[in-house]
Amino acid sequence: MTLSLPITPRTKVRRAPQRGSHERAVIDAILDEALICHVAFASEHGPVVIPTTHVRLGDHLYIHGSAASHMLRSLAGGIEVSICVTLLDALVLARTAFHHSVNYRSVVMFGRAELVEDAASKLAALAALIDRVAPHRSTACRPPNAKELGATTVLGLPIIEASAKIRSGPPLPDEGEDRALPYWAGVIPLHTTRGTPITAPDCTLAWPG
Amino acid sequence: MTLSLPITPRTKVRRAPQRGSHERAVIDAILDEALICHVAFASEHGPVVIPTTHVRLGDHLYIHGSAASHMLRSLAGGIEVSICVTLLDALVLARTAFHHSVNYRSVVMFGRAELVEDAASKLAALAALIDRVAPHRSTACRPPNAKELGATTVLGLPIIEASAKIRSGPPLPDEGEDRALPYWAGVIPLHTTRGTPITAPDCTLAWPG
Repeated sequence: MTLSLPITPRTKVRRAPQRGSHERAVIDAILDEALICHVAFASEHGPVVIPTTHVRLGDHLYIHGSAASHMLRSLAGGIEVSICVTLLDALVLARTAFHHSVNYRSVVMFGRAELVEDAASKLAALAALIDRVAPHRSTACRPPNAKELGATTVLGLPIIEASAKIRSGPPLPDEGEDRALPYWAGVIPLHTTRGTPITAPDCTLAWPG
Repeated sequence: MTLSLPITPRTKVRRAPQRGSHERAVIDAILDEALICHVAFASEHGPVVIPTTHVRLGDHLYIHGSAASHMLRSLAGGIEVSICVTLLDALVLARTAFHHSVNYRSVVMFGRAELVEDAASKLAALAALIDRVAPHRSTACRPPNAKELGATTVLGLPIIEASAKIRSGPPLPDEGEDRALPYWAGVIPLHTTRGTPITAPDCTLAWPG
């Protein structure tokens, strides 16, 4: 694994470059924590962006969907794609409207996705996707059969051209007269938590977690 | 306000159309709950997708950023844009790998963004953005001065061409032999919550909330 990715014209962080990173460890941690990504590509009608689930395995980010999906068929043709993953960590409140912000960790990737064709690689990517839902869940359900595997398209985007951007910490300090303004400044953390599992109506088992 | 948007080639919901909606009430509720959106456009290097904050006011979705931002300058030129807003509500676990899914509410929009040029409209959009952080926060901080307003670009995308897509409820029922599989099925809700506010090091006031 390359420790740091090369900087290209489209991964150079121009705005607030001190918040940017091309380190694989930084990029991978964000990709691995987020449960969904947003996939952008050029359609015949212009740019389109669609949400989907993803998983990183080694040096690829995998997405999947129905073999009939317009997006997956477009991407499988090898067109350029951009994928963004964003974690929103906090709201940032300053004394001035101008210094309000959000704390976040995001990754933007570029490249051409590859169709994963051999069954073993496809099954590995799908198992990894399911293991993101709950640890080892892919071994606590029936794996895809041949028909299901055929109806599913898996695409892998190599992690070659990507950058991370992170904002963290308190608001930028207000300056001069603004420091004396009688307004609170600080951050409100945001948390994503899992609630109590709800068993399906047709299931008689208790949640095993 | 149009109650239901016209269906165009790029807002027709092809996959799982029963999950789609073009009702403004459905679309607006999703836009209003989500704190960030993902903006896609064609750059000279291919498609790009970037996260940013947004607010809906009436029939427009507003985004903002530095007047020096490459994305905002590109979009202000009137190129086609696609904006996606996604709320991830739950993880969906079935007895079969194939029926695993997520519950979500998303909106995908298309069109050309308009530069908001007059100061009153710009201030209104920026105030609405800040009020999303905390109720009435825009009146509990110093509003933007002329210099700050000049350094900020605000763009509005009219809500003309958009669709919502929603998955909710339990997993699709597994069928036949799969029903007897000894695996739990159901959903794990996901919640986004606000944590305890953290006051900035240079602020002596207590959080007023």
